[in-house]
Amino acid sequence: MTAKHIDFQTDPSRYRHWKLKFDGDVAELIMDVDENATLFPGYNLKLNSYDLGVDIELADAVQRLRFEHPEVKVVVLKSGKDKVFCAGANIRMLAGSSHTHKVNFCKFTNETRNGMEDSSDASGQKFICAVRGTAAGGGYELALATDYIILADDGNSTVSLPEVPLLAVLPGTGGLTRVTDKRKVRRDLADAFCTVEEGVKGARAVKWRLVDQCVPNSKFDQAVKDAASKLAAQSQRPAGAKGIALTPLARTFEDTAVVYSAVRVDIDRAGRRATILIQGPTAPPPADAAGIESQGDQFWPLRLARELDDAILHLRLNEPEIGVLIFKSQGDASQVLAYDALIAATQAHWLAREIRNYWKRVLKRIDVTSRSLVALVEPGSCFAGTLAEIVFACDRSFMLEGTFKGTNLPPAALTLSAESFGPYPMSNGITRLATRFLGEPEVIEKVKAEIGKPLVAEACEDLGLVTTSYDTIDWEDEVRIFLEERASFSADGLTGLEANLRFAGPETMETKIFGRLTAWQNWIFQRPNAAGAEGALKRYGSGVKANFNQERV
Amino acid sequence: MTAKHIDFQTDPSRYRHWKLKFDGDVAELIMDVDENATLFPGYNLKLNSYDLGVDIELADAVQRLRFEHPEVKVVVLKSGKDKVFCAGANIRMLAGSSHTHKVNFCKFTNETRNGMEDSSDASGQKFICAVRGTAAGGGYELALATDYIILADDGNSTVSLPEVPLLAVLPGTGGLTRVTDKRKVRRDLADAFCTVEEGVKGARAVKWRLVDQCVPNSKFDQAVKDAASKLAAQSQRPAGAKGIALTPLARTFEDTAVVYSAVRVDIDRAGRRATILIQGPTAPPPADAAGIESQGDQFWPLRLARELDDAILHLRLNEPEIGVLIFKSQGDASQVLAYDALIAATQAHWLAREIRNYWKRVLKRIDVTSRSLVALVEPGSCFAGTLAEIVFACDRSFMLEGTFKGTNLPPAALTLSAESFGPYPMSNGITRLATRFLGEPEVIEKVKAEIGKPLVAEACEDLGLVTTSYDTIDWEDEVRIFLEERASFSADGLTGLEANLRFAGPETMETKIFGRLTAWQNWIFQRPNAAGAEGALKRYGSGVKANFNQERV
Repeated sequence: MTAKHIDFQTDPSRYRHWKLKFDGDVAELIMDVDENATLFPGYNLKLNSYDLGVDIELADAVQRLRFEHPEVKVVVLKSGKDKVFCAGANIRMLAGSSHTHKVNFCKFTNETRNGMEDSSDASGQKFICAVRGTAAGGGYELALATDYIILADDGNSTVSLPEVPLLAVLPGTGGLTRVTDKRKVRRDLADAFCTVEEGVKGARAVKWRLVDQCVPNSKFDQAVKDAASKLAAQSQRPAGAKGIALTPLARTFEDTAVVYSAVRVDIDRAGRRATILIQGPTAPPPADAAGIESQGDQFWPLRLARELDDAILHLRLNEPEIGVLIFKSQGDASQVLAYDALIAATQAHWLAREIRNYWKRVLKRIDVTSRSLVALVEPGSCFAGTLAEIVFACDRSFMLEGTFKGTNLPPAALTLSAESFGPYPMSNGITRLATRFLGEPEVIEKVKAEIGKPLVAEACEDLGLVTTSYDTIDWEDEVRIFLEERASFSADGLTGLEANLRFAGPETMETKIFGRLTAWQNWIFQRPNAAGAEGALKRYGSGVKANFNQERV
Repeated sequence: MTAKHIDFQTDPSRYRHWKLKFDGDVAELIMDVDENATLFPGYNLKLNSYDLGVDIELADAVQRLRFEHPEVKVVVLKSGKDKVFCAGANIRMLAGSSHTHKVNFCKFTNETRNGMEDSSDASGQKFICAVRGTAAGGGYELALATDYIILADDGNSTVSLPEVPLLAVLPGTGGLTRVTDKRKVRRDLADAFCTVEEGVKGARAVKWRLVDQCVPNSKFDQAVKDAASKLAAQSQRPAGAKGIALTPLARTFEDTAVVYSAVRVDIDRAGRRATILIQGPTAPPPADAAGIESQGDQFWPLRLARELDDAILHLRLNEPEIGVLIFKSQGDASQVLAYDALIAATQAHWLAREIRNYWKRVLKRIDVTSRSLVALVEPGSCFAGTLAEIVFACDRSFMLEGTFKGTNLPPAALTLSAESFGPYPMSNGITRLATRFLGEPEVIEKVKAEIGKPLVAEACEDLGLVTTSYDTIDWEDEVRIFLEERASFSADGLTGLEANLRFAGPETMETKIFGRLTAWQNWIFQRPNAAGAEGALKRYGSGVKANFNQERV
């Protein structure tokens, strides 16, 4: 299976696998996978199984529900097939994929499911999963990402996580973690559940806390309706709000660049690095929430977030050998802060809230991106407020003292806004600055006192906001040496290093999914028992049993 | 490198790598590795590098300090070599080891370092690390496990974690986690530190929070003394207490069994299972703490803990294909509870405290053992109080209703004591019952009300204390089917599954080390960039650079 260009942009008119139906404040999100519309050749998406292409559409739908349909209070996730809810990630796709693709596929699907939970937690757009038929593996993991699971009691409908017995891999799309930490299934019952191929159905599924409700077929639709009404009644979604359209991104792919309206990615394949240049706003913000609404998806912070999100995903999937992402910015920092101020002042408005929540998710996407992240804070840059968070998301940040010779660019400065002290928690539940200053919490108050003041390189280094500041004489060499050295290290060593260093402090279900569960799954994806020629993934469906090395590690 | 029988029992008279010196309430623990005394052929332990054999002695020393030397308030960890503190895990040993050995080696070394921290936290026996010379990789990780690190300021002494740049693996013995979560080093400085081969020395090491103090050579010994006096003054260790001797275990290795005084291990290699039979006390406990002291290491709870600990380690390292550990017990539950009651009543006495803390560590060792754990609670068993924790540590527990035909054994029962509600937290910081009933915390109070009452199978299943109860007709078949099925699954799949399901709820530095860090390290140990023929571990020291696949995963 060879990689082709994977595009993360889509829209409902192009969906092959999902349907959206709207009825007042309830939407139906119907999974009806077209088995022939695969991302790669070599497999068919039978039984509502999925590949990355299916998940890209799901992520798009979840995103559009938030921006285009603020009136929706409850989303009912259901299957468009008769006897099956969803068979999970397609096994032949997994068996034929490279290790890199498998891992990136899992990361994106995890982000999509976390995104569903964020819709519920942060925007009160609740999800109900109506399971009729079998929800196996990733199918049940999809259900686990919703707020309320209703299972048909018809002798056929089951939930199961058969990965270990069938495939010798884990329920790795958050499944194990959500079973223990979200559904809080007792550990021995969880163990039993995860080792019984055929899964659990009926009353036992409720008793074991695997689903919330089990209903005979004759009452199923009514039960789903009732649950939706009940959840809708609790939702704080804005009444009468009108969504904005998420129009196609302005985007051009060149051989060594991707050019968006506010983001430009330059790719240096020989140096194994990409530079992501963020363009500050070119006009001041509108006056109020109505102004944001009327600008819609062209409102600079939203436009930038969408472009940056797409750029990161593009680099992850389509440029696997790019080891370092270099973040730069240019523009007027005071304008960036003006946009932050507007968004902060209009948080009572659903759209301002959604934009801030989207930035939270984009920044989290950066945090868990398995590339070395470095910020170069240079003269003329605009790392202020929300954009300063990108600097704090990086593994290293370098800042120039003063300005470059022969230019009249303003000296490099960082300016903080209130956005760094609350609205953008990392996956670990605390802010990037709180994580950064875990050992010196007093610095956070000190830094807070500097909100709104442009901080030049020496001040930033003193405060610990950047890794190092360099003068113009050293800058070029120091940056070059860093980038060359970084490119010489083992890609895997760096992946492991960064995954450990980025998330100090508390843990949450999200960090457990990306840390513990994902790391074990990646290990297993590398083990012959699963991925080898005689492993369970390869031999699945062949009639020949897998051959296992039974040494316990 | 082939496995031979690895023995975890040793004593100071047999140490090849460590020396213990005592001076009042301060002990010196001196690392002076004999480079020829390796566990396997194929490498030399140059530069105070270590293999599992070195760590077995360290673990023994740490254990003896607690039991044999209650007068010791502070342990100074130092090197017996001139220019080097410790070069970490031996690289040729790692390069030549099987994946299984590498992973088990890391797990044991982690447990040893956690044990040092437990000495400090739970027993007030504090550790100071006096670093003169280079402390590289695992050498610095050893320092990280202590309470206070003093570094010589002599231009030569450094601390470093050069694993990523030199070897393409992680500082995996807790290093990364302790840097971010114990020392709370800022993440970008941690990143810089972990990518600079030569490490950090002098004032910068203090500034970056890597060490606590940096002292010129001329004042080094005095500074160590001063720090020791200061820590000793804060310690609550008992004045004038006299230790007990940890004598050699009574132990016989047979072909398919290991026989101790209170533990018997029967190994069924064809069935890939081992049965660990725990023998309850054969005599009532002594009357008081003085009685415990006079029985010394023959006091049943201590004797059993030592034997069980040794049995688990033996199975981990010497029987890698045994996939299931079956725990059984036999004896008088009321006697087990009498021992619990004595230990609880005498917690003011150092030895009773040590015994309870040791049980805490043995139970944690079981928790992180990468084998399927099952308890069979049968007639005549004595899973009461502390021993009931073993049932709660298991992935599954099966209990017989009534008693076997033709015997007059008392029916199977579980009896709880206060020990299940506090003194034995898991690595996640909460009790096994709190973890078990995360979704139904009200059950914990309900169960607490049953303390002291023998609970038969039906009651235990109702309360959720065991997975399933079976009558005598079903028992044999159900247990057999479970064991056969378990043995048929992929060893790796089960390892990942169990590592995720066992630790619901909160996370601690310990769970982060065993979850996140260890899982990533295991993944890397499996990747060609590290372990392949052209990988960094294999090519280290050859003069030929490693050949890396630079795809980011």
